[in-house]
This record gives sequence, C-alpha cells and structure tokens, in this order.
Amino acid sequence: MPPPTAKSQLPCPILALSGDEVTSRIDEVAVEEPLEIRLASAGDPLTFQRVAVTMRTPGADADLARGFLFAEGIIRTAGDVVHIAHCLDPDVTAEQHGNVLTVTLQDDVVVDMAPLERHFTTTSACGVCGKAGLEQLTARGVMRVEDGAMIGERAMRVAPDVVYALPDRLRSKQGTFDATGGLHAAGLFDASGALLAVREDVGRHNALDKLIGWALGEGRVPLAGLIVLVSGRASYELVQKCAVAGVPVMAAVGAPSSLAIETAEAFGVTLVGFVRGGRANVYAGAGRVAVTSREEADAQAGGQSDGRA
Amino acid sequence: MPPPTAKSQLPCPILALSGDEVTSRIDEVAVEEPLEIRLASAGDPLTFQRVAVTMRTPGADADLARGFLFAEGIIRTAGDVVHIAHCLDPDVTAEQHGNVLTVTLQDDVVVDMAPLERHFTTTSACGVCGKAGLEQLTARGVMRVEDGAMIGERAMRVAPDVVYALPDRLRSKQGTFDATGGLHAAGLFDASGALLAVREDVGRHNALDKLIGWALGEGRVPLAGLIVLVSGRASYELVQKCAVAGVPVMAAVGAPSSLAIETAEAFGVTLVGFVRGGRANVYAGAGRVAVTSREEADAQAGGQSDGRA
Repeated sequence: MPPPTAKSQLPCPILALSGDEVTSRIDEVAVEEPLEIRLASAGDPLTFQRVAVTMRTPGADADLARGFLFAEGIIRTAGDVVHIAHCLDPDVTAEQHGNVLTVTLQDDVVVDMAPLERHFTTTSACGVCGKAGLEQLTARGVMRVEDGAMIGERAMRVAPDVVYALPDRLRSKQGTFDATGGLHAAGLFDASGALLAVREDVGRHNALDKLIGWALGEGRVPLAGLIVLVSGRASYELVQKCAVAGVPVMAAVGAPSSLAIETAEAFGVTLVGFVRGGRANVYAGAGRVAVTSREEADAQAGGQSDGRA
Repeated sequence: MPPPTAKSQLPCPILALSGDEVTSRIDEVAVEEPLEIRLASAGDPLTFQRVAVTMRTPGADADLARGFLFAEGIIRTAGDVVHIAHCLDPDVTAEQHGNVLTVTLQDDVVVDMAPLERHFTTTSACGVCGKAGLEQLTARGVMRVEDGAMIGERAMRVAPDVVYALPDRLRSKQGTFDATGGLHAAGLFDASGALLAVREDVGRHNALDKLIGWALGEGRVPLAGLIVLVSGRASYELVQKCAVAGVPVMAAVGAPSSLAIETAEAFGVTLVGFVRGGRANVYAGAGRVAVTSREEADAQAGGQSDGRA
C-alpha cells in the first residue's frame, strides 16, 4: 500500500559527542512527513473533502487512515471503505505524491464533518510535503537564526559539558513531573547552562508554547544567545516553534525526526538530540557547539606559537 | 492567570503491582483537560472566533495561548495582545470555566484564518471539558467494553507476569526504533501475552491508528480479549481510540493522564501504566488483572478445602 519510495528511516550525518570526544558518523533517523487524508464517495469519486493532515512516518498509510476514520466515528466497519489509494490528482505535485491519501467510501456512508471540524485543533503549519512547510515559514517572514549580526558581536558557542548538564537541571525543576512521573517539559537556559525558566504539560507542544509564550510576554523574544531543551523527542513542530522564536540552540533528550533536522538546517537552528549520560548527537548547526577538531586545535596552537591571530 | 481551581496534578487510587505483590495506594496523576482558544478584537470584544482546542495541563494558560498564537504567526509581538482571560460568556457552562480562554487582540491585528484552517488536523473528538468529550463518545454509540456478555463466556483475566513481559516483546519487534531510537509504537497482544502485531510512527496517535486500522481491515474489531500496549504515556485520545475499538486492556510504558483514567473508567477499559522492570500500576478496571487479594486467596483455599465451588 505505501508507494515504493516510502521510507521509515533515512541516513543522516551527525557529530557524536561523548565526554571530550567528537566523532563524525552516519546515523539513521526516523522519517516524519505530513499525510493529508481526503474522503471521496464511490458514486462521485471526483469530489473530495480534506479531513485531516497528520505528521506521520510513511508506511501503513492505508491502515493509518482507516484507523483514524474509525476512531473519529466516520467509518464504523471496514466495509464502509471501498478503496484507499495515494492520490495522483493534478493538484498534487510530484513532491507530494505519497503524502496525500484518498479514502473512497460507500455511497451510503454519511459523513458529518461538523463534529470533526468543531474539534479540529492545530498541530502544525505545514503543507503536505516537508518542503512546503518550510516554504510557508519563509513566506510568513520567519528568518534564519543568525549570530553575530552586529559588528563586534561574537558567535554563540556552547560547550559540550553545558549540553550534557541540561537534562538534570531541567528535571530538578520539574515539580509536577516529580509528583506524577508523567509530564513533558521545556526549559530555557543561557549559553552557560543556567536555567531561566521551565514549563510542564501533558503535551510537549504545549510545554514549549507555554515557555515561549512566557518569554514573549517578558519581552525576551527573539531568544538570542539562549538554549531550549525539550524533555522528549524533537519533531518538526517543536523545531519550527524554536525557529519562529529565534532560538539558536535546541536540545532534546530524545531523537529528532528527519523533518526536524531539515527544518533546523533551513532556519539556522543548532539541533542536538539524545542528550543523555554525558553524550549528545549534533544533527544541524554544529558550529555553535564548541568542540575543537584536531585541525582547529593545531591551527590555534600554531597561531598562538607564532603570534598570529 | 489560571483560575484558582486549576490543578496540574490530582490524587488517584491505584493498585500497584510489583512481582507477586499488590498494594492499594494513592498516586498523583498529571491533569489533562481541553483548552479552547478564542480570538476577539479590542474594538468588537463580543464577537469571537475559535482558533484551536488543545489537550493541556491547566496552568500558564495565557502563556500557552500567547506562545501558540506566536508560533502560528497570528501575533508577532506581545503588544498585539490587549488581554487574555478565561471566558465567562453565557455559552460556557460552569464545568468549562477555566477551559475556554479569550485572547483580545489590537484592532490592527489582521487574523488570516485561512492558513490556520488549511492546516488544522484533528487530535481529539472532545469538548471543552473532559465530561463533554465522554458524552460525545457515548452519543456516537461507543459502548462500554464488557467481557462475558454471552452465557458461558468467561471474563478476561491477565496475569501480572504477562503484563510485565509486554514492553520487551514490543521492543523486540520495533525494527525502525532499533535503527533510529526515535519512534513510538503500539502493539496488539492476546491475553497470554503473545504479540499479534506492532506498528511504529513518529506520532503515538498514528502508531495506534495504524494498529487499529490494520485490525479493522482484518475483521478483528472489536478487539475482544486482547491487550494493546503503547510505548509512551497514556493520554485521553489513546484511551478513546482503544475504547472505540473495544480493547479491554490498555497498557502503557509511561504515565496516564487524569482524563485518560476517567475515560478508561467510563468505557470499561482496564488501564495499566508504568509497565517497567517487573512493576505496573493499575488505574482503572483492575478486575481484569488476575491478582489475588488475600481475601480472595483465603476464599479460594477455603472453597477448595471444603469442596464447595
């Protein structure tokens, strides 16, 4: 059912930090792409309505659509569905192929969109391919996060030890997590690792919205020179929220998705994942993580010894 | 800013399983409630439009709304907002107070709903209080999950050792997780703990939709006598999906939310959380977990010894 190109994982070059050691290697990351679900009727297959866009890992798309429509009460049995196919309509560009699914229902299935619409809630401002989402951010005027835009300003550099220490510092301030063991959190830190604020929520997007909403109210946005740590994985949406708020360094305790990495690269956000036990992986914007390669170290040593800058 | 009643955690009676031991105690669980965000304009404060419903932990609601609107590009500065208040309009019932927030914008802020609507995606069929969501499920015809409805049919019982073994069995079949370290999963098991199917996704809702959508296609829904395990936390939406599919036992590696527990109780789903290292907590429907209390054990022993049933 998924098209032959559907991939659930992709190779990605990373900088793996472990204590003082730095290694360049290729890691596999989970693919995240939008899926738009459309409904059509067997008697009128050319007319469709969009019911949802969800960020998902490609594969088992027909099962995903069937399960979603069943959970929402739009279909009640498997027999309500005539067929499910990736949409090749003219309005779907080549890049979106595989990301738009049309579910054709029996004529007698009455779709009541009202309850569905009433309970829609945004989860992302993305199109139906990753690129469209990034283009929309640019169209909204979201700029790349740049350091040192002003003369004399130095680029932001964060030491690996600062990164390693973030999760314990976040955790120490998670009051509700301590009691319940069940909340996501987002924390704001300065470049030396000092914790400025932490917000918790059952939803990881909400925790980050609370943190950035607080900072906005305090007049601290754009969050230049600061680090955001999220307690879970790094999805496209979380990186997008950081990019909009001008966060130069985003760290996550868990794994990033493919689209999270693409978004970080496109908007100049340094993305660090798997921050655990004195280790971390840098997926984008490694320039802001103050590791010194052997070449740099040699050059610096050389520069010092002969007095040149 | 949150109303005085806003609570981020609530006490909940649980049955704590550890090996062969069973303890009744009170645990704190994270609160999950819907928040509806409305926009009004300073010049016309009586007219509003709904922009989102999100499942969140009460508290810092104004920050959440401000951060959400900023991420979506609806506001660009804190000054775009005149004020934020929990809504006391006549259409909001007493139960919903604290769950509806009106953000009043400056007159010159032009809200373009089109891109927002285009990218709406459903995350839940809930109202703006937990109870409304449960009532809507009932109105849709979703029934309580009942065992032994037919004469001679026995109630489903799952041994604690079976529960403890679920996460390792799920993990052993998570192909993409092994490669990427970054995917949610949902698994379907029979009452003896045999794994029937597993689905993975960057989104935990999607993983469960894929699993149930597959089962629906296979003619296996309602999923009577079976167990679903999710790799993360148990939210309202995940329990709702299980209830709709007639799953009698839902287990989660992580913590459940308050509304997840309420939903499980209302729809007769056994909800088990924190399944880790030979331990688990039962939050609802403990009757399906085959632990024998001292009284039951004594009664059974007595029954055996004197020959009575």
